[in-house]
Amino acid sequence: MTDKTNQRIVLASRPVGAPTAANFRIEQVAKPVPAEGEVLLRNIYLSLDPYMRGRMSDAASYADPVAIDDVMVGGAVCQVEASNHPDYEVGEWVLTYQAGWQQYALADAQDFVKLGKHPEHPSYALGIMGMPGFTAYVGLLDIGEPKPGETVVVAAATGPVGATVGQIAKIKGCRAVGIAGSAEKCRHAVEVLGFDACIDHRAPDFAAQLAAACNDGIDVYFENVGGKVFDSVIPLLNAHARIPLCGLVSQYNATELPQGPDRLGLLMVQLLVKRIKVQGFIIFDGNQHRYPAFAKDMQQWLSEGKIHYREQLEQGLANAPQQLINLLEGKNFGKVVIQVNPPL
Amino acid sequence: MTDKTNQRIVLASRPVGAPTAANFRIEQVAKPVPAEGEVLLRNIYLSLDPYMRGRMSDAASYADPVAIDDVMVGGAVCQVEASNHPDYEVGEWVLTYQAGWQQYALADAQDFVKLGKHPEHPSYALGIMGMPGFTAYVGLLDIGEPKPGETVVVAAATGPVGATVGQIAKIKGCRAVGIAGSAEKCRHAVEVLGFDACIDHRAPDFAAQLAAACNDGIDVYFENVGGKVFDSVIPLLNAHARIPLCGLVSQYNATELPQGPDRLGLLMVQLLVKRIKVQGFIIFDGNQHRYPAFAKDMQQWLSEGKIHYREQLEQGLANAPQQLINLLEGKNFGKVVIQVNPPL
Repeated sequence: MTDKTNQRIVLASRPVGAPTAANFRIEQVAKPVPAEGEVLLRNIYLSLDPYMRGRMSDAASYADPVAIDDVMVGGAVCQVEASNHPDYEVGEWVLTYQAGWQQYALADAQDFVKLGKHPEHPSYALGIMGMPGFTAYVGLLDIGEPKPGETVVVAAATGPVGATVGQIAKIKGCRAVGIAGSAEKCRHAVEVLGFDACIDHRAPDFAAQLAAACNDGIDVYFENVGGKVFDSVIPLLNAHARIPLCGLVSQYNATELPQGPDRLGLLMVQLLVKRIKVQGFIIFDGNQHRYPAFAKDMQQWLSEGKIHYREQLEQGLANAPQQLINLLEGKNFGKVVIQVNPPL
Repeated sequence: MTDKTNQRIVLASRPVGAPTAANFRIEQVAKPVPAEGEVLLRNIYLSLDPYMRGRMSDAASYADPVAIDDVMVGGAVCQVEASNHPDYEVGEWVLTYQAGWQQYALADAQDFVKLGKHPEHPSYALGIMGMPGFTAYVGLLDIGEPKPGETVVVAAATGPVGATVGQIAKIKGCRAVGIAGSAEKCRHAVEVLGFDACIDHRAPDFAAQLAAACNDGIDVYFENVGGKVFDSVIPLLNAHARIPLCGLVSQYNATELPQGPDRLGLLMVQLLVKRIKVQGFIIFDGNQHRYPAFAKDMQQWLSEGKIHYREQLEQGLANAPQQLINLLEGKNFGKVVIQVNPPL
């Protein structure tokens, strides 16, 4: 690589089941030069998120898949390295989805969120102040409608969404019960994040432990994992429970449906007899009006020390494929961010 | 039977699968005499409704089951035949759940809804002006939130709930597509009730016909039947669809879960990628504040001829078991009411 080179990672093939390194290809291409009206972005922090698994597949979903040989998509916090756009200066920081998995990108500035010239924590725009934090806020408050004293349960409790859900639940006076994939994560959830309890879903008696931690049942189950965790949650749901549904990460690598019996109708019976609401949502779809309230509240909670935020910063774009593979297996610990370039 | 006799129907045994006549027992007991503060009710119109199947089972649900040898429960429009209660006069009409499947009942008047001395259509309190109509109104408007131009689909389209859902959908400027169990019912839905289309779910190409009738997809699916109808609805649901869930009558007689694969997780994926809301509700739980608006709107729509209401009136309490069995098989046509006694 020279400073005239742009390293990028493209989708080489669509995964069958869990993605492998062979589904990605690292390429070196020429570093691009901005035309009039364009900006050259220097990618500093690339976000890795579970939704990226969906973009690797061509199954119908809420967003188009990445085409084979195209650069993988993703949110990134970049600096302007060169600018032919009147509104952007060299050195300025922006959040954008136009860069994706590459060191440099040309962009038309249309989707940029300005982060200023000297942001204190630029990578927070990918996590607690960005998509995952906003997802937790809108899902829990607008769909979950938690009331003081209620029990809120969330899985991936040390991930950027789950950790935020649990901490907002505590701020709102709820009992927060987390679910995570190791004893170390569970300790972190209770001791650092302030969950009332956190259960290791790999424990053989997970369902019994979860039931014991939810003495009064579950009023809000913030769903981001699906699968066996949800199976253990269903019998604990209280009448009028609410289930904000923003992800099903445990199911993303599945290649076929689980064996029967078919419980689809049984789930509907549970929703009926317990008068439960399940609502799927995608944070970028229809929630923009809530962003100012989120940003204000979250800034305040962070400054008051009421919200802790854990980031797992990994060095080098070449590590992104393996880190995404790990993330989908729950091997991350906190919000995964790839440092693609040093800042200017 | 003499005028000193009270005929009643008790639950003789719990059904396994579809109820049979053997699950009920007709008894003759002495006509009761009201004590101080009590009213003797003369049951005129007994309502038959799908939820009664649930009360015959001892599976956990939102209401306690009927005990073996107890009188079957149900809503009824009664006249006061004798009164030792200062607020009730002989001849007055009331709606109550204290009478159930019997000719006469003592009651403490606590749950009575007064219908006056000369109601124009007393049995309407069991249907269009009562539980089924109110269920349609709250489910469609409060949970379904239909917007003009959207497509609303409802099954059991000539039943008291489905017919009302479709007609309110039309009043609100929606396209209404019904599903029913015979060509005659489908004709009634379109020609009398004003549905834009109605599909016979017994047709071999039902799913294709439903898809053709829902060119623009489905925005609101009012769920009251479940099973194969829901299977055909799922692929047609639009982004941001809403599913008010008030019943699953096609599943009530099931004795085991359908064979796999297990589509529970697949349903959740659909709710996620399409950002769909499913919300179970029971009309008697938390919706009382909406009753005045319902009563006002429905009275007006009826008086303006915008809502048609079809009743299937059957004579004699002894026919109630077979009529309930028929109802659960979709053999009714309109709201099933049993005339238990002639009016005073």
